[in-house]
Amino acid sequence: MKKSLLALTLLGAFASVAQAQSAVQIYGTVDAGLVKRTDQTLAIGKRANNTLGFKGTEDLGNGLKALFQLEIRYEPDTGTLESVTRPLFQGQSRVGLQGDFGLVRLGRGLTALQETSTAFEPWRGLPTPVGFQTDLQVAGYATAFGSGSDPLGAAGNSGNRFSNALFYNSPEFAGFQVNTTIGTKEANSGAPVVGRGSALFPQYPANFEASVNPYSISATYKNGPVAAMLATERNAVESRLSMIAASIFATPELKLMASYQRQNQDHTRLSNPLTKAWILGANYTMGPGKILAGYGQKSPDGLAKVKQLSVGYEYSLSKRTYLYADASKKKNPTLTIPTVNTYALGVNHAF
Amino acid sequence: MKKSLLALTLLGAFASVAQAQSAVQIYGTVDAGLVKRTDQTLAIGKRANNTLGFKGTEDLGNGLKALFQLEIRYEPDTGTLESVTRPLFQGQSRVGLQGDFGLVRLGRGLTALQETSTAFEPWRGLPTPVGFQTDLQVAGYATAFGSGSDPLGAAGNSGNRFSNALFYNSPEFAGFQVNTTIGTKEANSGAPVVGRGSALFPQYPANFEASVNPYSISATYKNGPVAAMLATERNAVESRLSMIAASIFATPELKLMASYQRQNQDHTRLSNPLTKAWILGANYTMGPGKILAGYGQKSPDGLAKVKQLSVGYEYSLSKRTYLYADASKKKNPTLTIPTVNTYALGVNHAF
Amino acid sequence: MKKSLLALTLLGAFASVAQAQSAVQIYGTVDAGLVKRTDQTLAIGKRANNTLGFKGTEDLGNGLKALFQLEIRYEPDTGTLESVTRPLFQGQSRVGLQGDFGLVRLGRGLTALQETSTAFEPWRGLPTPVGFQTDLQVAGYATAFGSGSDPLGAAGNSGNRFSNALFYNSPEFAGFQVNTTIGTKEANSGAPVVGRGSALFPQYPANFEASVNPYSISATYKNGPVAAMLATERNAVESRLSMIAASIFATPELKLMASYQRQNQDHTRLSNPLTKAWILGANYTMGPGKILAGYGQKSPDGLAKVKQLSVGYEYSLSKRTYLYADASKKKNPTLTIPTVNTYALGVNHAF
Repeated sequence: MKKSLLALTLLGAFASVAQAQSAVQIYGTVDAGLVKRTDQTLAIGKRANNTLGFKGTEDLGNGLKALFQLEIRYEPDTGTLESVTRPLFQGQSRVGLQGDFGLVRLGRGLTALQETSTAFEPWRGLPTPVGFQTDLQVAGYATAFGSGSDPLGAAGNSGNRFSNALFYNSPEFAGFQVNTTIGTKEANSGAPVVGRGSALFPQYPANFEASVNPYSISATYKNGPVAAMLATERNAVESRLSMIAASIFATPELKLMASYQRQNQDHTRLSNPLTKAWILGANYTMGPGKILAGYGQKSPDGLAKVKQLSVGYEYSLSKRTYLYADASKKKNPTLTIPTVNTYALGVNHAF
Repeated sequence: MKKSLLALTLLGAFASVAQAQSAVQIYGTVDAGLVKRTDQTLAIGKRANNTLGFKGTEDLGNGLKALFQLEIRYEPDTGTLESVTRPLFQGQSRVGLQGDFGLVRLGRGLTALQETSTAFEPWRGLPTPVGFQTDLQVAGYATAFGSGSDPLGAAGNSGNRFSNALFYNSPEFAGFQVNTTIGTKEANSGAPVVGRGSALFPQYPANFEASVNPYSISATYKNGPVAAMLATERNAVESRLSMIAASIFATPELKLMASYQRQNQDHTRLSNPLTKAWILGANYTMGPGKILAGYGQKSPDGLAKVKQLSVGYEYSLSKRTYLYADASKKKNPTLTIPTVNTYALGVNHAF
Repeated sequence: MKKSLLALTLLGAFASVAQAQSAVQIYGTVDAGLVKRTDQTLAIGKRANNTLGFKGTEDLGNGLKALFQLEIRYEPDTGTLESVTRPLFQGQSRVGLQGDFGLVRLGRGLTALQETSTAFEPWRGLPTPVGFQTDLQVAGYATAFGSGSDPLGAAGNSGNRFSNALFYNSPEFAGFQVNTTIGTKEANSGAPVVGRGSALFPQYPANFEASVNPYSISATYKNGPVAAMLATERNAVESRLSMIAASIFATPELKLMASYQRQNQDHTRLSNPLTKAWILGANYTMGPGKILAGYGQKSPDGLAKVKQLSVGYEYSLSKRTYLYADASKKKNPTLTIPTVNTYALGVNHAF
């Protein structure tokens, strides 16, 4: 019995070591595959964002926790950050407190609308062009004329995050949750936004402060197999993006989802300020395999429609590793090559 | 008993795993808060340097240890490194050996003077403008005319570190310790230093070698509640910075501190080569709370005086996490806005 | 006994924690020393590549494993990445699967030829100028006219890796192993390669696609004290590098090695397309000490010969830490300073 006690004592010593070590958790994703697009050479590309992150939680007692998260984003095919001009912690860099009141964080990360939307997209918001997030859903608006969540951000910044922001997530209450992101007006080395100005006198010159505090709010609801969201966002140049989405597990294997989004850029565009899009999607699980499918349309100002049809298949080798095969056909009549097919085959490993 | 032995054997197996894992320790700080300065918009800013570091120690036997430390510095409000041009390991990158003889390291890090000085500054050398380190104490000289510890360093390098240096810290002896940093003369992609030259023919052209080996020496003394330091430093362009400082715990809760520093730039400036500054500070601990206060003056060549008064409060949620509130008033008659008030409210989390 | 069972239960809990933590392994090297070269000032330099890496392996069952590796490369004397323009994961960034079939990986890393060659170089392929890898062996060709493994890679990329590549290592069979690297043709932000073109109309303009799929193959053979390799590589601009090498442990303490390499750049050079080199080397182990020695010659097109003689000594303080002293004399009659001596003294710490 003495020896058993000794064993327990040693275990105690270990417990403290383990606790100290668990302060920082390293996590991430490496995703690489072969990608072939119409009129492009066969390339090594990615399906998911590639991340290397550091995070930790500290129990402060009384249900209060301190937490932080720092997330590097990189391209495994070349070993580089996502872009030379992107921040080291492009994924996120936040510190905060969690308690009965919810979760409060300061720093940089996905806006409430952007973060919530991925659950209603058939490729879970992955940035692959086979998915719908990058062009048809929220991120797709991040191209010009002050669109996207962060139009006054530094060159290379992703368009779907706020820097210099306060993030609040409420506790869940009867299936409802509210998420809010509010940014400061501070200038952030942004490129000029011409908008209703001219190239010489842009509406927002380089490194300009926001004309309003950017904010993003999403409300979600979950009830058994059903989930829904409602979200709206106004960026630093007063563009507004709103979204409604829902999903249902028709059977335990089959998840159906739909979303509708509308962007109004009338503060910066002289004409055609409206963009609308809708997406239908399905995921079907069969043992270690999963089929993904989606169809969507985007109508800038009701004119030329972009149409996309995608299918994919994932085969899980474990909870952390899966193989995938994706294919999509996308039509955009305004482009030189109006129809682009994309095929991808790769491996995704989480650590 | 057999099972107990088995338990011990398993513990042995764990011990080796734990040892292998403890080779590299990940540590860091995330600090973010709301900052409001006179004539600037409300911003998300920081009080402390934000770090993500990797360090380790290896026991070589006979009291000898090998050790290394690599420290990233970043801005959590934007996810970027401190500056695009700063090194990845802006904090430090050193490898060395420790034994009875003391600690010898090679690489890049704070100079002996700079590292020692923080114990005598009421904000512990934190870079917040509410503190005194950045402008009134050592780092404040790092602005022009070959001042700072590393005037010939690459653009964006902090002014209070040596690259290409050998660091030696003696063992403590009767309360005394000596710290020495010696740099090589090697060129390091530095910008030109005009000095006593002209814009066309600078005294130190771009990427020039040091005219002398830069060095920094500090001696410290500790005796119960009393501590004192004496330090001097000569940089690569022969500017000399000297400092004397002392602190005393008047009661276990109350730490009082004072420092005086003098910089001579007569090798690079034609006139007014002297800068002098002094700082008085106090820290008062009340349970989980701590009050910080300081007053200081800086006199470039005995002319226009810069004066700063600061107060702060820290509230510890744990040993690793605290909230803070800071305020300061600073007068510099040579600036367009001669009086600047700064207020900050935030959270600091160490991991 | 109940307590022993409890102890075992607790151990079980620990086992899962330890397993989860071991998913990501942090490793690396810090190497710094004093370096003196003829006509250069004494500097802090390195002998080995400095790395900070993250890697992990996941057991998928049935002998199948998923694995990844991400490797930062930096300079400890200045805290920077190896070059501003180099990728964050300059060392490698790969994800793959390992099984009875061998090892398949996607991403960026050393080519098969480059990786295999280091075992036949007396400084184990370390980049110190005292060693032979950087100039006389494979990497030495990475200078101009489309030489090196990655001539169309982004500026700053090392010349001995493929980006956008598939890597295959066969299992060992009767001492034989085959390693293959195949790159895509995709453009990778490369600088122009003039080659047989002109400065205005380069043979390969900036950001150009490869004219062929670059590949690299090496075959190795091991039998007791004997090892040998045969390798060939064709890069994106059709330069071809071939190599034959062998080593033998004459006694358990004495390893002798020799290599011969030949590069043909007739696709991009108008004249003198051939470069040939040979290296002889020896390592002699004496307890914790090891002597390294080598001699080699390089003949660009059979004209001016580069000759190098080097000796070194390593003293191991542990399995992870050693001190070193190196010296070399190198003659290149085409340079302004035809004879360069290099001396280095430093410490290498692996973690």
